[in-house]
Amino acid sequence: MTTFPTSLGTSDADSISLLGQDLAHDLMGRVSFGELAFWLLTQRQPTPGETRVFEAVLIGLADHGFTPTAIAARLTYLSAPDAVQGAVAAGLLGGGSRFLGVTEDTGRFLGDVLADAADTPDGLPAIEDEAAWDALALRAVTDCGAAGRFVPGLGHPVHKVGDPRTPRLIGIAHEAGTYGTHLALFEAIGRVHEQVLGKRLPLNGAGVSGAALADLGLPPELLRATVLLARCAGLIGHIAEEMRRPVANSIYLTVDRNARYVAPGEPG
Amino acid sequence: MTTFPTSLGTSDADSISLLGQDLAHDLMGRVSFGELAFWLLTQRQPTPGETRVFEAVLIGLADHGFTPTAIAARLTYLSAPDAVQGAVAAGLLGGGSRFLGVTEDTGRFLGDVLADAADTPDGLPAIEDEAAWDALALRAVTDCGAAGRFVPGLGHPVHKVGDPRTPRLIGIAHEAGTYGTHLALFEAIGRVHEQVLGKRLPLNGAGVSGAALADLGLPPELLRATVLLARCAGLIGHIAEEMRRPVANSIYLTVDRNARYVAPGEPG
Amino acid sequence: MTTFPTSLGTSDADSISLLGQDLAHDLMGRVSFGELAFWLLTQRQPTPGETRVFEAVLIGLADHGFTPTAIAARLTYLSAPDAVQGAVAAGLLGGGSRFLGVTEDTGRFLGDVLADAADTPDGLPAIEDEAAWDALALRAVTDCGAAGRFVPGLGHPVHKVGDPRTPRLIGIAHEAGTYGTHLALFEAIGRVHEQVLGKRLPLNGAGVSGAALADLGLPPELLRATVLLARCAGLIGHIAEEMRRPVANSIYLTVDRNARYVAPGEPG
Amino acid sequence: MTTFPTSLGTSDADSISLLGQDLAHDLMGRVSFGELAFWLLTQRQPTPGETRVFEAVLIGLADHGFTPTAIAARLTYLSAPDAVQGAVAAGLLGGGSRFLGVTEDTGRFLGDVLADAADTPDGLPAIEDEAAWDALALRAVTDCGAAGRFVPGLGHPVHKVGDPRTPRLIGIAHEAGTYGTHLALFEAIGRVHEQVLGKRLPLNGAGVSGAALADLGLPPELLRATVLLARCAGLIGHIAEEMRRPVANSIYLTVDRNARYVAPGEPG
Repeated sequence: MTTFPTSLGTSDADSISLLGQDLAHDLMGRVSFGELAFWLLTQRQPTPGETRVFEAVLIGLADHGFTPTAIAARLTYLSAPDAVQGAVAAGLLGGGSRFLGVTEDTGRFLGDVLADAADTPDGLPAIEDEAAWDALALRAVTDCGAAGRFVPGLGHPVHKVGDPRTPRLIGIAHEAGTYGTHLALFEAIGRVHEQVLGKRLPLNGAGVSGAALADLGLPPELLRATVLLARCAGLIGHIAEEMRRPVANSIYLTVDRNARYVAPGEPG
Repeated sequence: MTTFPTSLGTSDADSISLLGQDLAHDLMGRVSFGELAFWLLTQRQPTPGETRVFEAVLIGLADHGFTPTAIAARLTYLSAPDAVQGAVAAGLLGGGSRFLGVTEDTGRFLGDVLADAADTPDGLPAIEDEAAWDALALRAVTDCGAAGRFVPGLGHPVHKVGDPRTPRLIGIAHEAGTYGTHLALFEAIGRVHEQVLGKRLPLNGAGVSGAALADLGLPPELLRATVLLARCAGLIGHIAEEMRRPVANSIYLTVDRNARYVAPGEPG
Repeated sequence: MTTFPTSLGTSDADSISLLGQDLAHDLMGRVSFGELAFWLLTQRQPTPGETRVFEAVLIGLADHGFTPTAIAARLTYLSAPDAVQGAVAAGLLGGGSRFLGVTEDTGRFLGDVLADAADTPDGLPAIEDEAAWDALALRAVTDCGAAGRFVPGLGHPVHKVGDPRTPRLIGIAHEAGTYGTHLALFEAIGRVHEQVLGKRLPLNGAGVSGAALADLGLPPELLRATVLLARCAGLIGHIAEEMRRPVANSIYLTVDRNARYVAPGEPG
Repeated sequence: MTTFPTSLGTSDADSISLLGQDLAHDLMGRVSFGELAFWLLTQRQPTPGETRVFEAVLIGLADHGFTPTAIAARLTYLSAPDAVQGAVAAGLLGGGSRFLGVTEDTGRFLGDVLADAADTPDGLPAIEDEAAWDALALRAVTDCGAAGRFVPGLGHPVHKVGDPRTPRLIGIAHEAGTYGTHLALFEAIGRVHEQVLGKRLPLNGAGVSGAALADLGLPPELLRATVLLARCAGLIGHIAEEMRRPVANSIYLTVDRNARYVAPGEPG
């Protein structure tokens, strides 16, 4: 018979274990929810410093007000208030490339640049060698531009000068002792990109989150999952607020009453 | 022009606020993710004791191995690995009445019994008056049976004698100073139900979670949302494990190869 | 070994069968998609008349412009354009009680009234005995009012006098020979409800769809599934239009720019 | 005020229009559901031949038994039977690259090869010039191999010799007068690929569907939406069958009882 291996939850009549720990006695009341989430993702217990950075990222990405995903969740709750799970799910389904993908894209981009650099005779710079990071960042941004691609993690529609999460998360990573090569490279990109792009853009919060998570050892394919967990908390906040002080019907009517019919095939 | 009120996230060029707090400086690095989630749900900052109980509940409900929802998430990841958000959403969509509804049902049931009792001349018992709680519980369980309804939070398919999460969460609530009327009533149900039902059933972990959350002041309609957040962490754990050591294709083949065709209309 | 019975699709190296039919030769090119959908739901091939009514219902319910579900699907597409399946799913998740539930509620209500009447000594009226249907409808509407419940299928926010789909679908059912007890009772409700409610409300399109589908033998629990299929076509129409002439970003900005911050706990 | 243009559904007190047609009188009872779906996707009314091919594709892709998506839908229904929309949505969320993406990939691949060929001095071959199509196909398959990419639409895990839907759909396209350059190129790939790949693979049903839909003028980005509509019908069939003769609990238990715990970090 086929068996299905797992290292997550198991139970028998008397006990429940999760990740090899006794759920009731080793985890409940002893670790934070964020610590457990990191452990579930990576199957290793984070250090207190790693937990602090991981939770700071989750908090920084939890909610940005009336985003498309929050609006979709509220409209779904309006239509199907008996199935809260559907409203949360509808909100998470917007977790794709355009708005929530920056964290993953940044982590992957930085990881690729670092992997290539590690393969050179010189290897990676020492963390404190700012000039060497700048040189590496300059090559990476230049290559990106030559390939016609955007540098992920740069720029923000609202925070045009600076995203307040970025210096804060870098500070937390330093305090927590997790500041590593991804953040070093990301900061260097912040210093040098103007030389290539001809304008100064802020390092955004989604990007710095990708860098900070990558420094914790999270591979790029787990970064979007992390953002989804963060956003899940924000979405239940929106749904709870929608229960208390609804706006979704008003959003719906605003759109419906300003609909303008255009014959098929006409430019509109 | 219609405006859309919210107390959640807002931002301008220089700052981001969430729940009236400065996101970067007052929340990131200062509160835990579980604390923020409670705050988002209720729009009030929890006490440290409330946070501890809330996080213990989230941890206790995060994962139970190969549940239907975890399997659905893994199968969806197998089919659409490019859209992790779809796999998480598919898993959450199983957060309905049958498996994840017990927490909400228990919180609502206890709340209704307490509200009725509070309306009587005697009002609610003092927390430590076990005999009075037993009397109230006996009436509630008897009424439930007379109405042909199950008492929510009683019984478990695996933990037939005792669910290890139950005493642990009650202990944490005592330590945290949040133990209140819902847990008192729930414990009394655990002591007296055998007199009515003729058999002894365990107080299950989902039920005790509903009682403990209700004691934190969470209304019943927010309990399912809490469970969904807990389960979101478990689901990203399953998807991360599926990336490393996949079982979904093997599950699919086990089902497909043991399919048995039955003509439409035949009993099967 | 456990086996898993099904009467749907099976295949071997040379052939594919669906519902016991040769998919390539008996179904493709020979039946319409609507006919197959009915067959999949009920596991029996519909008559041509049943197919005509079923497809008319699907068409009548496919789209109503910028509904909350259509807006949610477009916002999800905006956020995650690489995962069209997520946008369709987000739209369907609004298929709950408030907007799409009327069809199911009406079918169930009519079926319950008919089942009760069939159990009386007189049994059900003959289809053409309008006076007897009126009497039955009057009792049903009166009972509904006494129980404090709305009569499902009555009233419409836009079509205050008459929903144009209602007479049309009744006409199609007559032509197709499927007009039966559910539609007879529903029409009688349309004639008599004013005596009880004191105002004249239109029989709406969602309600008449429930009656017409119930007359085809579809049980209430399959009516919402039918509506979801109808709506799926509408949603892919919205997503296709969003690809060509996007409005979702404009909807998002309309909401976000008119957000108004309210401190937590204030009335808003 | 911002307005939101649409050519889909609109209504006023007396009438409902969809795609510029009177919904009740011009569409209900007059067009098939498949015809309306094509119209919604493309915003032009299909010819009868186009409708026949479009519906044949929908039927050919509606269901393949216990696929991962069907199993996910059934497990979700098991967990949340009160929210059928969640079960349908969970099933559709598997509509990603791996299983349902072949139709889109094939349409896009064929379209790209045709666009490149149309830009050459010789332009595209005449439909009946089989030798010229073979030459074009040979270059396309060779280029694909040189780029290390698979040719989409080739090969099937079960129908190793031939997929019965392929000749059937080609026959229907000929009868309907819609056979065009995409099918001509796809058939040529079927004749020549063995010269490059060294083995003969069948043209699969998902691929031929992409070719046939592209010949109807559907752009690649609408092909996945078409497959999702087809699959929606299959999924409601599975959910209806699950209501009558459930297997999801048995699937769940088969997996759960054969779970094998592996310590985190061990190979498993």
